[in-house]
Amino acid sequence: MKNIENNHLIFNKKKNKEIFGNINLTQIRNINEFQFYLTLIEKTYNIGFNMVNGYTNNILRVDLTSEKISIENSDDIFNRRYIGGEGFVAYYLLKELKVGIDSLSPENKLIFATGPLTGFAIPGAGRNSVGAKSPLTGGFGEAEVGGYWGAELKHAGFDAIIFEGKAKDPVYLWVHDGEAELRDASHLWGKITGEVQEKIHEELSDKYIRIAQIGPGGEKLVRYACIINDLRNAAGRTGMGAVMGSKKLKAIAVRGNRKQEVADKEKLRELLKLFNEEIQIRNAGYFEFGTGGDYMEEAASSGNLSFRNFRDGGFTNAKALDPRTIKETLGLEKDGCFACSIRCKKIIKIGDPWNVDAIYGGPEYETLGALGSNCGIDDVAAVCKANEICNKYSLDTISTGISIGFAMECYERGILTDKDTDGIKLNFGNSEAMVQMVKMISERDGLGDILAEGVKRAADKIKNGSDKFAMHVKGAEIPMHEPRLKQGLGLGYAISPTGAEHMTNLHDDTIAHSRVMTYHGPIGILEPLEMDDLSPRKVRALAYYTNWRYLFNALLMCYFVSWRYNHLTEIVQAVTGWNTSIWELMKAGERISTMARVFNIREGLTKDDDWLPDRFFEPHTSGALSETAIDPNKLKSAIQTYYKIMGWNENGMPTQAKLEELELEWVV
Amino acid sequence: MKNIENNHLIFNKKKNKEIFGNINLTQIRNINEFQFYLTLIEKTYNIGFNMVNGYTNNILRVDLTSEKISIENSDDIFNRRYIGGEGFVAYYLLKELKVGIDSLSPENKLIFATGPLTGFAIPGAGRNSVGAKSPLTGGFGEAEVGGYWGAELKHAGFDAIIFEGKAKDPVYLWVHDGEAELRDASHLWGKITGEVQEKIHEELSDKYIRIAQIGPGGEKLVRYACIINDLRNAAGRTGMGAVMGSKKLKAIAVRGNRKQEVADKEKLRELLKLFNEEIQIRNAGYFEFGTGGDYMEEAASSGNLSFRNFRDGGFTNAKALDPRTIKETLGLEKDGCFACSIRCKKIIKIGDPWNVDAIYGGPEYETLGALGSNCGIDDVAAVCKANEICNKYSLDTISTGISIGFAMECYERGILTDKDTDGIKLNFGNSEAMVQMVKMISERDGLGDILAEGVKRAADKIKNGSDKFAMHVKGAEIPMHEPRLKQGLGLGYAISPTGAEHMTNLHDDTIAHSRVMTYHGPIGILEPLEMDDLSPRKVRALAYYTNWRYLFNALLMCYFVSWRYNHLTEIVQAVTGWNTSIWELMKAGERISTMARVFNIREGLTKDDDWLPDRFFEPHTSGALSETAIDPNKLKSAIQTYYKIMGWNENGMPTQAKLEELELEWVV
Repeated sequence: MKNIENNHLIFNKKKNKEIFGNINLTQIRNINEFQFYLTLIEKTYNIGFNMVNGYTNNILRVDLTSEKISIENSDDIFNRRYIGGEGFVAYYLLKELKVGIDSLSPENKLIFATGPLTGFAIPGAGRNSVGAKSPLTGGFGEAEVGGYWGAELKHAGFDAIIFEGKAKDPVYLWVHDGEAELRDASHLWGKITGEVQEKIHEELSDKYIRIAQIGPGGEKLVRYACIINDLRNAAGRTGMGAVMGSKKLKAIAVRGNRKQEVADKEKLRELLKLFNEEIQIRNAGYFEFGTGGDYMEEAASSGNLSFRNFRDGGFTNAKALDPRTIKETLGLEKDGCFACSIRCKKIIKIGDPWNVDAIYGGPEYETLGALGSNCGIDDVAAVCKANEICNKYSLDTISTGISIGFAMECYERGILTDKDTDGIKLNFGNSEAMVQMVKMISERDGLGDILAEGVKRAADKIKNGSDKFAMHVKGAEIPMHEPRLKQGLGLGYAISPTGAEHMTNLHDDTIAHSRVMTYHGPIGILEPLEMDDLSPRKVRALAYYTNWRYLFNALLMCYFVSWRYNHLTEIVQAVTGWNTSIWELMKAGERISTMARVFNIREGLTKDDDWLPDRFFEPHTSGALSETAIDPNKLKSAIQTYYKIMGWNENGMPTQAKLEELELEWVV
Repeated sequence: MKNIENNHLIFNKKKNKEIFGNINLTQIRNINEFQFYLTLIEKTYNIGFNMVNGYTNNILRVDLTSEKISIENSDDIFNRRYIGGEGFVAYYLLKELKVGIDSLSPENKLIFATGPLTGFAIPGAGRNSVGAKSPLTGGFGEAEVGGYWGAELKHAGFDAIIFEGKAKDPVYLWVHDGEAELRDASHLWGKITGEVQEKIHEELSDKYIRIAQIGPGGEKLVRYACIINDLRNAAGRTGMGAVMGSKKLKAIAVRGNRKQEVADKEKLRELLKLFNEEIQIRNAGYFEFGTGGDYMEEAASSGNLSFRNFRDGGFTNAKALDPRTIKETLGLEKDGCFACSIRCKKIIKIGDPWNVDAIYGGPEYETLGALGSNCGIDDVAAVCKANEICNKYSLDTISTGISIGFAMECYERGILTDKDTDGIKLNFGNSEAMVQMVKMISERDGLGDILAEGVKRAADKIKNGSDKFAMHVKGAEIPMHEPRLKQGLGLGYAISPTGAEHMTNLHDDTIAHSRVMTYHGPIGILEPLEMDDLSPRKVRALAYYTNWRYLFNALLMCYFVSWRYNHLTEIVQAVTGWNTSIWELMKAGERISTMARVFNIREGLTKDDDWLPDRFFEPHTSGALSETAIDPNKLKSAIQTYYKIMGWNENGMPTQAKLEELELEWVV
């Protein structure tokens, strides 16, 4: 692990050497050492950690066609109304994109945005958002990503970057301390992410530069190509990497040391102390094993984990995929995002036969599911290898896994044959075949070229009834949470503007317990609701919670710290100085959700696109959900209730009054 | 002033003697002494002031017909959903009242409710709500009132009282320390409020008993009779005193010393310290002169103050009505509500010729306007006398003043003649005639009997085009804020479920200034809006602010402390222990507003009742608004926008989805 230990400290090592000395933070691996880590965080504040470049809102606009770079600013009202992140993405896409453009044409815009909290030493706030019209759905495209890049962009003096046009030859953008320049990337084109990072570090003589980039998957316009930060953090969904590839933009390298004060440093310090203490208790599991840790067996036995393309139940060897198992058999180190005390990110190094390189991290829960159980696979090392390839080539692991699961089902049903697969025995459970398919997708090789289009388009090409096995909503592949089990989440999949989406979604189990009033009282959810409930009360819970999550994607706070509504609001107040409240912030979330909806409508998506694959209206073939499915009539009714609660008409179009209420009369 | 100084201390003197010693709190009359008062408040906490009977929610149900008294309780979910005060009123009226009953029949119910903060030493929280089907509007009737009675009810062990049926002979209810009994009131019937208080104090041998009661105006079913607390605080609007009279319920006497802890005493103490400090700065004007102080001239010159039945402008002698003038010429003492450091209540004693008794207090801004300038009167002593009579006989001063102004206009136009007035020269500006009319209304004598029905019914009887001069919405007379000047408030008058209403309304001037973002950011109002703006942004501001105000009427906090959204929320948290937020509380406000709306719809009110008198579509005959009126088309459009923002259909009926969102599916 020698090769990475200097690279991914919680803070940038160079500028914090005087604080952290020679402490190797990747060594922290248990809950006692965690306390020590918290002390460091606290110490950081006490010596006045540079509160770097807060919320000045410098927006960098880069025209790749003309190579013109300019800087814009926004005022406080704009900032409060759209917040940042997904809010900025929604604003600029609606304001600036021509209707009906090809998402892979120069007319699309690619927006990287941070939030008002990004760049400060706040756990969970080390994220950034990327948005564009999606090549996968044809509608609103957006993904968030952790790591260090977003914080570094803030430290470099910028809140957001808007890319327009298309470069003649491959370029990368170099942003540093208030400046930005486009540089030739011809020598980097075709290279995998690890090589690109090494070369940029070399040519700019600074190994602390943070890089957001695409691998060959993005270059080859795999429709679900992602953008990779720091080699192992992915802005995964909706194909943002393909848009980046279409613009011949290989990477964005950032570095900076700009300083800025927060509105109320003392208050922030006090709030963060409490915050970190609570995180320590709440997220101990993530700290030890990362996502999916100690949960895989339960996920499988409850039916939540997809098994063989969401068809079957009864996956009995989920324990083999568990991060605890990884730790005990293959070894597991942990890493985190900027300033975050949760440290949920996995680092895995595996030798023969899979040879997994640690710099590309390890699989998240979604990846363990999509490329593991969803493909009928329990060989966790193979899944780790597939994950490594996805991060090298910049592929979204969820869409990749679902695409391969789809192909496996088609193969087993005879819709695809050995001729289609170039002889690969594409059965469920064949881990070599799975790994090989990941490579073929990333290179658009053979069947991989078809699967690189996503399951919706692949089924259109393959035909022969294969569309029945294409597990997607609006073209976006389904994540690893079973809508037959969590039916509110199923409704969320159906109505989400980015297609099947687990991040802005309600996870029904979080409101099914008796203490729901204590936890979710601030957003008015006072009574526990059953997982399979699709009544108006569940719809209301989804609507409220979804608005809160959109807000989080605008603030760019992590899902894992989203439970403390009031606390978070106070943190926003302390950083920005706004006299704000959960009401205003929830309304900002509703505003963003509504903007994404309006974007889809103008791009031609209709209420008919708000639906689930037929498979979810039938039970699993076996296991816990062998008698449970979604009732399509209940879903239909719940969708209408959702529309109305959101102030949309029966076609899912926000009413004029709702747009006016949200100060969005301009979007029409 | 000897006769009142022992009676209206901020806290009950007997139980706080050890704290306050012999300090006469009515002596505090300037800002320096205010600081001393704050010290007392603080000291109060430090020695552990009895946090009496918090939020146990004991609801007393009194069947006057059968004389059966019972106690009910409600759970925490109910309490969070409906909060208290106007929320409880709305709940019980919708749940228990038969549709279409006569408001003055035994089938109506009269509900007295406190809120979760009532009874604690929180400034602004010494209020209670009274509700029933309104004899004035035929719809939702509700009014709030300050003083000491609400706090004392809490201390006596009860959160609310529901009166049903009708007593055979006059009765009063005696509530003390968890017990309640009905007592004969035959000897009190026909008596004015001051005499009743004296007699009850005598017969129960306790002069610290707090009394809510009606005078002869309520007994005689004047449709806008109010309920008087502590002789000088009125639950004024919508005729709750007439409902009380119809039930032959003369008074409710309360006394108690029950204790209860708050959820977080330390936090509450800290919050209140800050709160009181801010109140000292914010409300210094109210502290010195009470409502209307130093404002009357501006009110008149801006056009905000009604002059001659909302017809004319150019009232030049408004200074004569100013509380500062009262203080300088007649003398002015100050009193307040339980635990409140604002102390906005006036105490006035005047000798010949008007002989105003100090125990009945002094006129509020609304009274100075309605019985003063609105009747063309600048004789402030006469207005004080009229105010005294209203408090003796329990008449709402706004409705009384508007009714007399209406009669004056009819008289001057020849629609009413000397024959109708029994020879009284009922011209604008005739103060003797005005005072005489107040008496006649309270006794239902001559023309007073017609005016006692309210201007809507009076115009129906008088005919001859008099309805053009009947200034009301839904039968409720217009308060002293000019809708032609504050057009958002005009919209609020039109749509309010209780008819023209200034308490749950937006006052446009409070959001017309540049610091609106700082103050109203928590509810998402970020930009100043012109007073005469009726655009969707103004409608949105009205809707949001109105929801907040409904919440205040449920918490039973005073309008004068409503500016600190987050602070107030924290106070609610500290008292109740709820993990709540402005979001949840705003939604509770929206819930209550929606319930009141639904109640009106089921009682037969329609969207046609959401409208203003024609007069407001024409300018004043002179003065600042001689060229300004409301554009009826803009109002019409704004009403539709309001409906939609509230989730109501084009007829103003809440949609099924909105009811479901607010967990009100049961009201249909």
